[in-house]
Amino acid sequence: MLTRIDHVALVVEDLEKAIALYESGFQAHMCCRERNEAQGFEMAAFEVGGSMVELLAPTVPDSTIGRFLAKRGQGIHHVAFRVDNLREGIGRCQAKGLELVDKEPRRGAGGSRIAFLHPRSTMGALIELVEPGNEE
Amino acid sequence: MLTRIDHVALVVEDLEKAIALYESGFQAHMCCRERNEAQGFEMAAFEVGGSMVELLAPTVPDSTIGRFLAKRGQGIHHVAFRVDNLREGIGRCQAKGLELVDKEPRRGAGGSRIAFLHPRSTMGALIELVEPGNEE
Repeated sequence: MLTRIDHVALVVEDLEKAIALYESGFQAHMCCRERNEAQGFEMAAFEVGGSMVELLAPTVPDSTIGRFLAKRGQGIHHVAFRVDNLREGIGRCQAKGLELVDKEPRRGAGGSRIAFLHPRSTMGALIELVEPGNEE
Repeated sequence: MLTRIDHVALVVEDLEKAIALYESGFQAHMCCRERNEAQGFEMAAFEVGGSMVELLAPTVPDSTIGRFLAKRGQGIHHVAFRVDNLREGIGRCQAKGLELVDKEPRRGAGGSRIAFLHPRSTMGALIELVEPGNEE
């Protein structure tokens, strides 16, 4: 069901400093940067061997990422696994009694479809399932 | 410098339940399981598209993993990036002013060589660098 680690997302306070760490410190290639006003964060993504590292910084304190930062501090936010068919993946998780944050696929970046599982069901780790879109 | 996500490590309370989640819930393939008495944890690893997911459960409370679990609860512990040459990677990180937990490569699983960076230097995320061994 899981075909690859699609991305690992890290919450950071200062996106510019974090970008400098990955570009200069790790020589990683930033492949996209975008501001999500609706969800109150800015994101920079780096390609690493077919997977991505996403750096997320809140643009407003009262956002999912802002509240995570206030409560837990900087650090790893979630891991996303790629699946071939998200609707089948959601169905399988539900059949196994796992709790989903998103019971229906919702739109992610680049035309992808995504669904988050609730950490209560996944040993405390926030896990996202991603079915890639055609725009990637 | 970073060639791939080598693995993502998750701390769990109950390794059997976590293995069941990944095997039965996610249809992932467990490729190894081992007990590290010296460091006080047991590990089960799953292959996902050329990367690994490592589940770590403490075998004694007074261990790195046990203390993480007591302080932070279950969740994502660290992300490991593969590098071609660990000594060069360590040198580059030091040249960029990053703080290393391991200033010299130390032995990891399967003949690999590893070094951890200190989360103080990496925006709160615990990051491991891994140079693969020949035993993989």
